[in-house]
Amino acid sequence: TSSLRYWNHRQRPAAASLAAVCSRSMASKTPVGFIGLGNMGNPMFQEAGEQVVSSPADVAEKAHRIITMLPTSINAVEAYSGTNGILKKVKKGSLLIDSSTIDPSVSKELAKEVEKMGAVFMDAPVSGGVGAAWSGNLMFMVGGVEEEFAAAQELLGCMGSNVLFCGAVGTGQAAKICDNMQLAISMIGTAEAMNLGIRLGLDPKLLAKILNMSSGRCWSSDTYNPVPAVMDGVPSANNYQGGFGTTLMAKDLGLAQDSATSTKSPILLGSLAHQIYRMMCAKGYSKKDFSSVFQFLREEENF
Amino acid sequence: TSSLRYWNHRQRPAAASLAAVCSRSMASKTPVGFIGLGNMGNPMFQEAGEQVVSSPADVAEKAHRIITMLPTSINAVEAYSGTNGILKKVKKGSLLIDSSTIDPSVSKELAKEVEKMGAVFMDAPVSGGVGAAWSGNLMFMVGGVEEEFAAAQELLGCMGSNVLFCGAVGTGQAAKICDNMQLAISMIGTAEAMNLGIRLGLDPKLLAKILNMSSGRCWSSDTYNPVPAVMDGVPSANNYQGGFGTTLMAKDLGLAQDSATSTKSPILLGSLAHQIYRMMCAKGYSKKDFSSVFQFLREEENF
Amino acid sequence: TSSLRYWNHRQRPAAASLAAVCSRSMASKTPVGFIGLGNMGNPMFQEAGEQVVSSPADVAEKAHRIITMLPTSINAVEAYSGTNGILKKVKKGSLLIDSSTIDPSVSKELAKEVEKMGAVFMDAPVSGGVGAAWSGNLMFMVGGVEEEFAAAQELLGCMGSNVLFCGAVGTGQAAKICDNMQLAISMIGTAEAMNLGIRLGLDPKLLAKILNMSSGRCWSSDTYNPVPAVMDGVPSANNYQGGFGTTLMAKDLGLAQDSATSTKSPILLGSLAHQIYRMMCAKGYSKKDFSSVFQFLREEENF
Amino acid sequence: TSSLRYWNHRQRPAAASLAAVCSRSMASKTPVGFIGLGNMGNPMFQEAGEQVVSSPADVAEKAHRIITMLPTSINAVEAYSGTNGILKKVKKGSLLIDSSTIDPSVSKELAKEVEKMGAVFMDAPVSGGVGAAWSGNLMFMVGGVEEEFAAAQELLGCMGSNVLFCGAVGTGQAAKICDNMQLAISMIGTAEAMNLGIRLGLDPKLLAKILNMSSGRCWSSDTYNPVPAVMDGVPSANNYQGGFGTTLMAKDLGLAQDSATSTKSPILLGSLAHQIYRMMCAKGYSKKDFSSVFQFLREEENF
Repeated sequence: TSSLRYWNHRQRPAAASLAAVCSRSMASKTPVGFIGLGNMGNPMFQEAGEQVVSSPADVAEKAHRIITMLPTSINAVEAYSGTNGILKKVKKGSLLIDSSTIDPSVSKELAKEVEKMGAVFMDAPVSGGVGAAWSGNLMFMVGGVEEEFAAAQELLGCMGSNVLFCGAVGTGQAAKICDNMQLAISMIGTAEAMNLGIRLGLDPKLLAKILNMSSGRCWSSDTYNPVPAVMDGVPSANNYQGGFGTTLMAKDLGLAQDSATSTKSPILLGSLAHQIYRMMCAKGYSKKDFSSVFQFLREEENF
Repeated sequence: TSSLRYWNHRQRPAAASLAAVCSRSMASKTPVGFIGLGNMGNPMFQEAGEQVVSSPADVAEKAHRIITMLPTSINAVEAYSGTNGILKKVKKGSLLIDSSTIDPSVSKELAKEVEKMGAVFMDAPVSGGVGAAWSGNLMFMVGGVEEEFAAAQELLGCMGSNVLFCGAVGTGQAAKICDNMQLAISMIGTAEAMNLGIRLGLDPKLLAKILNMSSGRCWSSDTYNPVPAVMDGVPSANNYQGGFGTTLMAKDLGLAQDSATSTKSPILLGSLAHQIYRMMCAKGYSKKDFSSVFQFLREEENF
Repeated sequence: TSSLRYWNHRQRPAAASLAAVCSRSMASKTPVGFIGLGNMGNPMFQEAGEQVVSSPADVAEKAHRIITMLPTSINAVEAYSGTNGILKKVKKGSLLIDSSTIDPSVSKELAKEVEKMGAVFMDAPVSGGVGAAWSGNLMFMVGGVEEEFAAAQELLGCMGSNVLFCGAVGTGQAAKICDNMQLAISMIGTAEAMNLGIRLGLDPKLLAKILNMSSGRCWSSDTYNPVPAVMDGVPSANNYQGGFGTTLMAKDLGLAQDSATSTKSPILLGSLAHQIYRMMCAKGYSKKDFSSVFQFLREEENF
Repeated sequence: TSSLRYWNHRQRPAAASLAAVCSRSMASKTPVGFIGLGNMGNPMFQEAGEQVVSSPADVAEKAHRIITMLPTSINAVEAYSGTNGILKKVKKGSLLIDSSTIDPSVSKELAKEVEKMGAVFMDAPVSGGVGAAWSGNLMFMVGGVEEEFAAAQELLGCMGSNVLFCGAVGTGQAAKICDNMQLAISMIGTAEAMNLGIRLGLDPKLLAKILNMSSGRCWSSDTYNPVPAVMDGVPSANNYQGGFGTTLMAKDLGLAQDSATSTKSPILLGSLAHQIYRMMCAKGYSKKDFSSVFQFLREEENF
């Protein structure tokens, strides 16, 4: 068939509905399987010639190379170890790449199980957001056995302009988690600084310019400014629609929190950023872009 | 005389010891007075032909244009309104530019007093740090009456590559405070993310590279990375010596805190950043560069 | 006249409208003046025989002993040092007691000015809330010259069951500020713990009982529980009406913040509590009791 | 034998060394097994007539009623599901009570596994600390099937003066976690308020008295004050030795954090308290009582 089927975790029951896709179109003539295509997977894998199959196990039966991309740790475990999971029919020597953003300790567990079956597992979460997925500017951060990295790079290279080897299994996740935590902190910091400046009488565009010319500069101030009317083409210019949702940021910060707790690493601002995005989810911001934290900080009444 | 005298607030009693300097060398042939030259003022104003005088009042008597640069709000008030302060002998029509980083509400009060004397006051704090002062890459953020900005620009232009008009009196301070708050937040965020990543098994240089290629990018990660051995020529490469001291950052965050409290602006991360730098001052980091927050987060014993 | 006139700062312009009252009824036969009676002052001073006068200066002309109780530092400065302020007509040897909750540094300044006029100033903020004011269970925390404390105690003793000497001028404020900061922290902590427990499946009454039997016990859990249906007769049982308003708590935490910043004291939880109450003011909770932080933490939508 | 053997997790390898004890002395004539006795278990179960056995499985073989008390979730899983774990030899109808403080989700998993073997599992963490363990004033918070509570109560009643039924399996843990989180927040709040007050010129004993007479009152201020010389017989009077260690508090706050993250409950102060205790562990406070946070906040140098 020629149309791409993807799995939308909001519309279907979690356990039984993993759509799965095989493709002969990428990187070499051997088929590549995709499992759990959602918001990110759709543009990444929009190719002709797909064949829709009924379960992850079926994908594993037909393809030696499989890419999984699921929204949560639980979904990933299910896709690999569930009743109709990949591990039921995975072939020896298969390369299984998980591009989900999940707990690094889950990645390590999955890697152990995959290894028992004689196959190879790598974690390869992706950075760059939905926009980058459409434009091909994704970055894959890959964790796994170094000898297998070349094969992963060949496969992922068609989709992302950058494929980086990070170290042992789980380090791809670690890089993604740290990157997103820093992003959340910088975004809230930019929102607080912009809001304070406006309250103190500064013009928002001027303040953004000053931040960007100085040591206050960051991606959230110069590329994705959270204040409406400062930049065009970003969610803040469109009522915070599109972009990277507050719920997803809260979820990723939960992963950072769990990793920090288990490694006993202090993350004072990271923890507070997590709590702020958690509060936002409870206050009506769950579907807005994460830059809507600026709006969250603004007063809603006179006092 | 040919040597520059500057005021060091650590060595001398606060009230009586303001050294003051007049110069004929800058921007035009009329003399320019400088008051309160410390760490920042020294390289900014290192010129031949200075004449050292004994008090701010004496400077005001000899120069129509005066630049003040003092460490705290209290010092600034003293230099203007003290027993031998500028206001005792300021001439009508004088241009008084305060480059201190102080409370914007104090700037506004000073402006009122100066105006009563028939002179002009502008706040013009400076961004860029000691390194920029030596290399001439400072940025002045100027608040005051717009018609007087051209005169301020002429004077400050010799020292800083950028002179920006921010709005009414106090907005220069506002811009500086917001910029430094965002800087502190991003720096701590970078330190937390780098530390967490290292604990999770990532190589620091690789993680810095990933942050800088993605949305985690900020000045603290790409220009002033706080992790030793990631970059050369920054304080983290030199045991956190030089740079911008933790005490100064704590002081600037105190100003941000005060401004936020008085304008009822929520600064959740900004407040916590303030507290973190306050703790660091109490734990032996007061004289280290503010990027030493990375060191502060690292464990000091097995546990 | 027999009715008590009190000043309501919401209804009148700040500067000109200080109602003032003299009374012969208290503690001795000499008259006692009251200035700035608001929510707290009304029940404290409900006495027969008052005489309403037109300005703080007039009060000072007629009474040797004056109690002031104003909502903010600015109001207090105005009542003492304003155009028609107490200091315009204060008699030598007068005892001026300020029961406002204001910045301790402002108390110290007022004390200096009062002393110059040959009178005595003491700060004596009050704890216990509106309910305690009606029932006579207030606690006054008094700062000032110790020799004058007996006179203050005689005067305040009629109103509050406890009058404590705290030390030099400003220490009454210090005690009040620290007490309220601890209250805010414990209240938010109780709200977080109760909410987390409910989410984890615990019955709210049972959890409150457990907290109160163990080391989690605090005033906010055993006397003023923030969860509806756990206790009777508290604001949480009445849709958070009455009690101690969120705006006032935010204001008092602002004083704590300012005192901590100026004394370089780390208050990590205190700062965050301040920010939380600040956010609540912006999100529609400004007029609710401060225990409504429980409601603020609850989710408002499914996510 | 007559001496009590207990397992110290610092001295022995984790997996193989669980000492185990059987006793005929408690609550009825049938034997009761104890597994994993550490700091808390030692005084709780100091009885004559014990018999030391070699593994949890052996305990399960000899006793129908078993109490486990282990330091971490991992230790608990091992004691139940490990190679020589309880489940290897547990008899049908046995009552297994876990008094460890662990993740409620782990308690639920253990309950499922135990149920499969035809036995009963209840979680029953204990509050009151080491002092209460010696004096018999412990409080057990029990989660499990309600019909089995009477049996648990009979068994635990000998040790703790209070045994409370909290609800389904895991709710005992939930209650413990919430209680400890509130305790940590109140303790840090008390420490911050006491420190700020001292900096503002207040006598520590007086400030403690004021807090305890007013709405700032909490267990940390009136029973376990963190400031040296305010109370006798508490860790702050003994250089913070004894009591409840900072490491244990950090661990319990990690459990609160995990529970809050998984239930999406905002815990702004709880998260920050967790980070503060994590920092303290890294700064030399790991073995001190958790009230040493007061010392942590104090300045260590002039600045």
